[in-house]
Amino acid sequence: MSLPASDHLRYGGDYNPEQWPVEVWDEDHAAFTLAHVTTLTVGVFAWAHTEPREGAYDFTRLDAIVGRAHAEGRDVVLATPSGAMPPWLARAYPDTCRVDLEGRRHVYGQRHNHCPSSPDFRRLSVAMAGRLAERYGDHPAVVAWHVGNEYGGACYCDLCAAGFRDWLRARYGTLERLNAAWNTLFWSHVFGDWDEVVPPSMLSEHWRGPNHTAFQGITLDYRRYMSDRLREGFVAEKAAIRAHVPDTPVTTNLMGFYQPVDYHRWAADLDFVSWDNYPPLPDDPLRTAARMAATHAAMRGLKDGRPFWVMEQTPSTTASRDVNPVKRPGVLGLWTWQSVAHGADATLYFQMRQSKGACEKYHGALIDHSGRTDTRVFREAAELGAGLARTGAALLGARTPARVALLLDWDSWWAVEMTDGYNRHVSYLQTLLAYHRALWSANAEVDVVPVTADLSGYEVVVAPVLHLLKGDVVARLTAHVERGGTLVTTFYGGRVDEDDNAYCGVPPLDPLLGTRVEETDSGVPGAVNPVTLVLDGETTTHDATLVFELLVPDERTQVVGTYGAEFYAGRAAVTRARRGDGAAWHVATGLDDAGVARVLRHVLAGHGLVGPHADDEGVEVTRRVAPDGTTYAFVLHHGSAPVTVTSQVAGEDLLTGRVVEVGAPLTLGSAEVLVLRT
Amino acid sequence: MSLPASDHLRYGGDYNPEQWPVEVWDEDHAAFTLAHVTTLTVGVFAWAHTEPREGAYDFTRLDAIVGRAHAEGRDVVLATPSGAMPPWLARAYPDTCRVDLEGRRHVYGQRHNHCPSSPDFRRLSVAMAGRLAERYGDHPAVVAWHVGNEYGGACYCDLCAAGFRDWLRARYGTLERLNAAWNTLFWSHVFGDWDEVVPPSMLSEHWRGPNHTAFQGITLDYRRYMSDRLREGFVAEKAAIRAHVPDTPVTTNLMGFYQPVDYHRWAADLDFVSWDNYPPLPDDPLRTAARMAATHAAMRGLKDGRPFWVMEQTPSTTASRDVNPVKRPGVLGLWTWQSVAHGADATLYFQMRQSKGACEKYHGALIDHSGRTDTRVFREAAELGAGLARTGAALLGARTPARVALLLDWDSWWAVEMTDGYNRHVSYLQTLLAYHRALWSANAEVDVVPVTADLSGYEVVVAPVLHLLKGDVVARLTAHVERGGTLVTTFYGGRVDEDDNAYCGVPPLDPLLGTRVEETDSGVPGAVNPVTLVLDGETTTHDATLVFELLVPDERTQVVGTYGAEFYAGRAAVTRARRGDGAAWHVATGLDDAGVARVLRHVLAGHGLVGPHADDEGVEVTRRVAPDGTTYAFVLHHGSAPVTVTSQVAGEDLLTGRVVEVGAPLTLGSAEVLVLRT
Amino acid sequence: MSLPASDHLRYGGDYNPEQWPVEVWDEDHAAFTLAHVTTLTVGVFAWAHTEPREGAYDFTRLDAIVGRAHAEGRDVVLATPSGAMPPWLARAYPDTCRVDLEGRRHVYGQRHNHCPSSPDFRRLSVAMAGRLAERYGDHPAVVAWHVGNEYGGACYCDLCAAGFRDWLRARYGTLERLNAAWNTLFWSHVFGDWDEVVPPSMLSEHWRGPNHTAFQGITLDYRRYMSDRLREGFVAEKAAIRAHVPDTPVTTNLMGFYQPVDYHRWAADLDFVSWDNYPPLPDDPLRTAARMAATHAAMRGLKDGRPFWVMEQTPSTTASRDVNPVKRPGVLGLWTWQSVAHGADATLYFQMRQSKGACEKYHGALIDHSGRTDTRVFREAAELGAGLARTGAALLGARTPARVALLLDWDSWWAVEMTDGYNRHVSYLQTLLAYHRALWSANAEVDVVPVTADLSGYEVVVAPVLHLLKGDVVARLTAHVERGGTLVTTFYGGRVDEDDNAYCGVPPLDPLLGTRVEETDSGVPGAVNPVTLVLDGETTTHDATLVFELLVPDERTQVVGTYGAEFYAGRAAVTRARRGDGAAWHVATGLDDAGVARVLRHVLAGHGLVGPHADDEGVEVTRRVAPDGTTYAFVLHHGSAPVTVTSQVAGEDLLTGRVVEVGAPLTLGSAEVLVLRT
Repeated sequence: MSLPASDHLRYGGDYNPEQWPVEVWDEDHAAFTLAHVTTLTVGVFAWAHTEPREGAYDFTRLDAIVGRAHAEGRDVVLATPSGAMPPWLARAYPDTCRVDLEGRRHVYGQRHNHCPSSPDFRRLSVAMAGRLAERYGDHPAVVAWHVGNEYGGACYCDLCAAGFRDWLRARYGTLERLNAAWNTLFWSHVFGDWDEVVPPSMLSEHWRGPNHTAFQGITLDYRRYMSDRLREGFVAEKAAIRAHVPDTPVTTNLMGFYQPVDYHRWAADLDFVSWDNYPPLPDDPLRTAARMAATHAAMRGLKDGRPFWVMEQTPSTTASRDVNPVKRPGVLGLWTWQSVAHGADATLYFQMRQSKGACEKYHGALIDHSGRTDTRVFREAAELGAGLARTGAALLGARTPARVALLLDWDSWWAVEMTDGYNRHVSYLQTLLAYHRALWSANAEVDVVPVTADLSGYEVVVAPVLHLLKGDVVARLTAHVERGGTLVTTFYGGRVDEDDNAYCGVPPLDPLLGTRVEETDSGVPGAVNPVTLVLDGETTTHDATLVFELLVPDERTQVVGTYGAEFYAGRAAVTRARRGDGAAWHVATGLDDAGVARVLRHVLAGHGLVGPHADDEGVEVTRRVAPDGTTYAFVLHHGSAPVTVTSQVAGEDLLTGRVVEVGAPLTLGSAEVLVLRT
Repeated sequence: MSLPASDHLRYGGDYNPEQWPVEVWDEDHAAFTLAHVTTLTVGVFAWAHTEPREGAYDFTRLDAIVGRAHAEGRDVVLATPSGAMPPWLARAYPDTCRVDLEGRRHVYGQRHNHCPSSPDFRRLSVAMAGRLAERYGDHPAVVAWHVGNEYGGACYCDLCAAGFRDWLRARYGTLERLNAAWNTLFWSHVFGDWDEVVPPSMLSEHWRGPNHTAFQGITLDYRRYMSDRLREGFVAEKAAIRAHVPDTPVTTNLMGFYQPVDYHRWAADLDFVSWDNYPPLPDDPLRTAARMAATHAAMRGLKDGRPFWVMEQTPSTTASRDVNPVKRPGVLGLWTWQSVAHGADATLYFQMRQSKGACEKYHGALIDHSGRTDTRVFREAAELGAGLARTGAALLGARTPARVALLLDWDSWWAVEMTDGYNRHVSYLQTLLAYHRALWSANAEVDVVPVTADLSGYEVVVAPVLHLLKGDVVARLTAHVERGGTLVTTFYGGRVDEDDNAYCGVPPLDPLLGTRVEETDSGVPGAVNPVTLVLDGETTTHDATLVFELLVPDERTQVVGTYGAEFYAGRAAVTRARRGDGAAWHVATGLDDAGVARVLRHVLAGHGLVGPHADDEGVEVTRRVAPDGTTYAFVLHHGSAPVTVTSQVAGEDLLTGRVVEVGAPLTLGSAEVLVLRT
Repeated sequence: MSLPASDHLRYGGDYNPEQWPVEVWDEDHAAFTLAHVTTLTVGVFAWAHTEPREGAYDFTRLDAIVGRAHAEGRDVVLATPSGAMPPWLARAYPDTCRVDLEGRRHVYGQRHNHCPSSPDFRRLSVAMAGRLAERYGDHPAVVAWHVGNEYGGACYCDLCAAGFRDWLRARYGTLERLNAAWNTLFWSHVFGDWDEVVPPSMLSEHWRGPNHTAFQGITLDYRRYMSDRLREGFVAEKAAIRAHVPDTPVTTNLMGFYQPVDYHRWAADLDFVSWDNYPPLPDDPLRTAARMAATHAAMRGLKDGRPFWVMEQTPSTTASRDVNPVKRPGVLGLWTWQSVAHGADATLYFQMRQSKGACEKYHGALIDHSGRTDTRVFREAAELGAGLARTGAALLGARTPARVALLLDWDSWWAVEMTDGYNRHVSYLQTLLAYHRALWSANAEVDVVPVTADLSGYEVVVAPVLHLLKGDVVARLTAHVERGGTLVTTFYGGRVDEDDNAYCGVPPLDPLLGTRVEETDSGVPGAVNPVTLVLDGETTTHDATLVFELLVPDERTQVVGTYGAEFYAGRAAVTRARRGDGAAWHVATGLDDAGVARVLRHVLAGHGLVGPHADDEGVEVTRRVAPDGTTYAFVLHHGSAPVTVTSQVAGEDLLTGRVVEVGAPLTLGSAEVLVLRT
């Protein structure tokens, strides 16, 4: 099963009209029509009114909402309400509330905080999913199912502890294996009985929070377990739906680069991927744009590059940040088209109309508290809706023709950031994004994929901070290089095995990279060791910070960059080892953006993968290839002022009919978007 | 009942001589005589020695202390000791200790931390108050009763939870009403049973602390409830006193702008207001002076402008801050006279003699550990005592003739600072103080009053961040403007109703202001949008930060200030709508001090309310009108160097007999004070 | 009993080979031989494998480890494993886990966290110590016993509370005495029953953490008690060892300036002192070097100047810091020789081979994960081992001939940093280190001793922040001055008695200093009051910060330094009172390093105690006098570049045979060390 059937790029979003009188629904739908809204997500927080007391189901309101949408010709994404418990549930079954990292049992409040091991929560959420499926399974408006909401967090209760022990028994079989995996002879932690294992919390192995643990192995396994545990709830609800609904796709809304949950462990259970796009407060718009591109690619990479949905984005402001600026004019359209450019087949909002009260009352909406449609936000959203409609079905199912893979690995992310030693200021994600940014700036099409992905279609594989090695990744990377591909790795690569134990002797990635890390030096943030790169006969010097590996290259390894300071001045900082027909790079330090760009541009150029307009800052170009073979090039201008460039792309713009030719001057307004049929 | 009878400005303070031998008492009283001390506060922390075991009362020490004061001709403010429990009480009745925001039950320690719902604490504290009243009710030295001490904080125990449900039942009557008030359909929070409601803590609705809550309505009501709950304890003790003491006034010492407790909900139960003046560590002496002036006015505003007492201030250093500098020479006198200038009829210290041990041993005192009276601190305090004595009864009962009202509202304060959305860096209090400072710098007399205050006596009403509207405030503000008054409001005004739900459609304050807020932009601290003001034919440009409302003015509204940057450059940032005979201003952004001053000086000038010496920085002038009609003008020089100005005031100085004439040169030393009979 | 017998400076460190296969042990020992390793610390974390279930002892692995060491000709320091509980113990006896300052009972995890009051922990740890002693007591390889590991932290459980009450009963005898000591009449805290006393935690007297308490007396006593409580565990294990082992010395590894435990209370129970040298992340290498010198002196000072062991230091990186740089070339040798220069008779590492997994896997080791001996780290360690071996027995037992004493007092440290009032930014330790640094820079030999030390051998006594006075310290300081010695004290000196109650009237130290502190002003960090010093006819001006005491000198007191700003400009900031044949200085403010150096150089010069090369920055010179009377001068060059100086020392270098003469040019490489037989 894959994406919901559609004949257009779906447009719309979360709609919770139970909060206001039915009279207002008329205004809502009139506005939706103005804005070309086709699809509404309903029921996400409906538990309290669909089951106001245990077992007392009442679908009056939901019937009305779904029925009204259908009557207006709109489709519905129907949510199960398990993302937010009703008060009666927490009161009747206190074990549905979590115990937090500090060991405190919570009581009723907030949302997204049920204990995933609670049998009562499981029973009641699954029953609700079944009831919904039974009632709405063949409703003609319902095009997709949305289970729960933004799964995340962790619980540390006794039920979760018991579940952890079961999970460990299944993973390790014997205590001997577990003790070896966790290296428990260190600090006298040898477990003699499964029941001695307790969750790694602030009352046991942790201090200073979730990333400081005395035993990385325990904590790493708890994260894997908790990812699985949360997923079990999703799977159980999905099964309850499937019992009544044979062929409507089921998803849940993911959160992009969300560290606590390993989405690669979830991907197989999702019929299609959807995610909520709330980038951090923009400092630099180009960094934000690059980050969103990376996230789209990562979400697309969960299901082998198939298109995905943007399930949520804000039409204007967020509410949960300390500072919540409005989206600047054009940005809503630009970002929405960017999501389409990177593989979205639907772009939805949170939310259609603003809540009246509680913590999201100032979160943006298509229709704000004033109820007006003559606002800037509504106007821009309506124009965007019209533009999306104009493309019809052309883009549906189109794929990204990437020849570059960027490896994303939750295990490495977790392991690097929870390790003691070297440098706590290293961010796995920021490093990954820095490497992505260099590729994105070059308008190279990039897939962001798990380390288990088939690499045979890629010419360049970039693996930043590939700290933890698992499965046959070394063999596949080696094969990739030997058949002529390029591999780029960084500091901290290939240090530990799947159990987070250090490799002793020769680490398995070293022979491919042709380097040995003799020592790893660290610096406080801001302390710079200049690194000189010699590439293509040109010499440049860049700031390197945080981590400085002292490499011993082998005889086949070429030194491309050298340190300029400290007792290791002159020693290798960046190397390239030719292996087979390809090359393996080792960037052994925290190079600045220009340095990373220097290396990656060189690599891309070697494979002819530098994209069009790579030197026009702020001009993003990326392509999708439709099932019928047509290629669409998206040109997105992220700059705040108009620019005129000499076009390196050609085609007819689906939005305006404008024809663009290679070599002709191309003027792009701020936030302008072209969708060229090439 | 009102203030305690007196024939002089009372002077003295907290005196806890049970900590040292009776021999020392002789030195104490000799020093008090030198310093013109007339009034001692005793018994604040006396529970442990007046009831060393439950029911075993022992007033030996207290008798001696009160008796000795009386014998020396001094009056006594007698405190009930409920501000600090004795150890036996906490041990016998663990529920007298609070459960904190983190859900932790405390054990014995510190002070000001009894659970206000504990029946045992209530029973025992009321019994003690009754015993004290019985014993000292007709003691000739006792001129006032001081119940508890600095009430504050909050408890989250099961008893408080039960009390909260009772309070809600009384407020809302039905669950339907409660669910509507809290907008519980959002996030599936519909309460089906009163018992499902739990206090909003870090284990339920909160994260990151007291200002981050998923449901503002719940948290807002909990603060109202806790204010009431604490007050009940005060009222119960007061009733026990009243049973024996028909006509001695009862108060408790408030803490100025103390966010957790809504003093407006307390005011009716206080016979007179007293408060403890510990301004934050001075960065800029003028800001500190302005803040104290604002606080005096706010405390005076609790009881319709009647005089109040300063119950505590430090003669020298505090002890509880990270850095505790000594008060500079003259500052003690200057600040004390400032309190009198703004309505104090008594000025007392914490403390008369320094504690020997525990956490306040380095808090300043009239008599320090050395026991000497030849210290700078003692000398200054003694000079001040002499000066106060010199004024006799002249100033008692005198009122401030303010024509400007500044609206203070705990509900808005709470609502703004606990809301998600827009900008978490906005401080209600700092904004209020900025507007006050502009009025104060102009030496305009200002009352700081609740939104329920009678506005008919004011020409100018300033209502910064009047976020939450309640009662008939809009009608009264409208009437104020229509009869010729000026209203100045700011960003965030009139957004939510009493339940903290956003107004949908047209917010009720908008017609008066003549503006509609189409969007609200936010900036990180330090990010500036320049705002240009055109007033009185003069153009100035000011920094605006944090919040930027995008206004749509109506046809009768004049744009006075415009934004200079961002996509809304040129749009209205400050507007004035003429309505009836008056005008309503909307300052839609975080204007800097100069910008606020520019607006408010213009407004004051329009009403002829700019005070004397408004352009002499650091020279504060304010008046009190005695019951006999005499007006006293206080001239206070906050600058650190002497200045000579051309006098704009006239009269004879009560302190020195010096005669000041309008137009004559007037030299003011650093920290100099004149009290002119005009 | 004193240090373990030896014929050489012991070299080696922690070795936990149970973590890897026996085959690797061969490589280990081969490497040890290359590195001249003589001594291995084993068993520190062995509990899990020596008693895998309660009562089921299994010494197979430990036999093998100890036996193998012996077979290789190496000595063993045998540890009891009580520093890290096995899981079964925590599960069987939950009360072995601590309750933390927040009142939370912990469960199994980490290490160094047993409850010192748990009878089960005591029983089982003592039984284990006994078993070990029985088995290995007469093993020829075992040269010392190492009980537990890095004792520290605190527990707040009910058992510890009961123990606290017993401790108090023993200390105070009566509640009257306790109430007086804690000044409980303040804030109504009078205890009427011993059982009313609860530990001072975040649930009782504390807020903001361990240094913010309402009752300093309670918290001070809890720290004393907890120091004693932890020590009881050490003493109990030692007794169990002693039952089988009559004459092998017993120690535990201390942590230098570790605030939570008063090592002066432990010293008598240690047969010899050993400590772990992990200086904070170096900002400035000279500050780090000075700090280590101070710490060596403080550890040496625990046992009257007898030599000590460095039980741990890292050969390369730490792992527990946020940033963990590698030791620069030569630094390992330099720091190790520095420890010998200051009295170490053994220098050991943590660790011999790197752990494979868990939180110390990236902590440095002699042999890293690669297992290689051709690394820089191994090479430097091996060279160092050779150098140490070259000195043979020459330095064993040699003492430091110091004439300067620096007083270190945990009670003052605790009292100053937990007090409310004046300035929270004052650091006892940083102040002490600043005064030490001035002495160290002058190459003056310094002992760091408790206030109870015999002062008769010293000419100069420096007592920074001697806040709390106890015993006869004032009498001994007075005698010291009267017989011609110099005393240097600072701000905050002599303020409180042993109970942390302020002195009333004339504080006992004042007559010796000839000053009275009239007021104590405070400044925020960075706020400077310039202080002018006039010494030896020269005038210099220095920054003073944080604390500014306003002194009233008596007639015999000379003002040496004066404040330059604030209302006390011109008043005394530094004074010298001549008393008897000596002088007592009072440095009444936070002088900067240059100012402190100015004062102390003057003082040292007056006693002829400025050492050689005092003006050659980075050149440390210090001496040890061997039992045979030979004096060895250590010359250590901490600078990063070579220097050539005119030698002020003479002798033959034990390491190279090079002969150094006074007046001849002496070139020192970076990190170079000379050990001169003079």
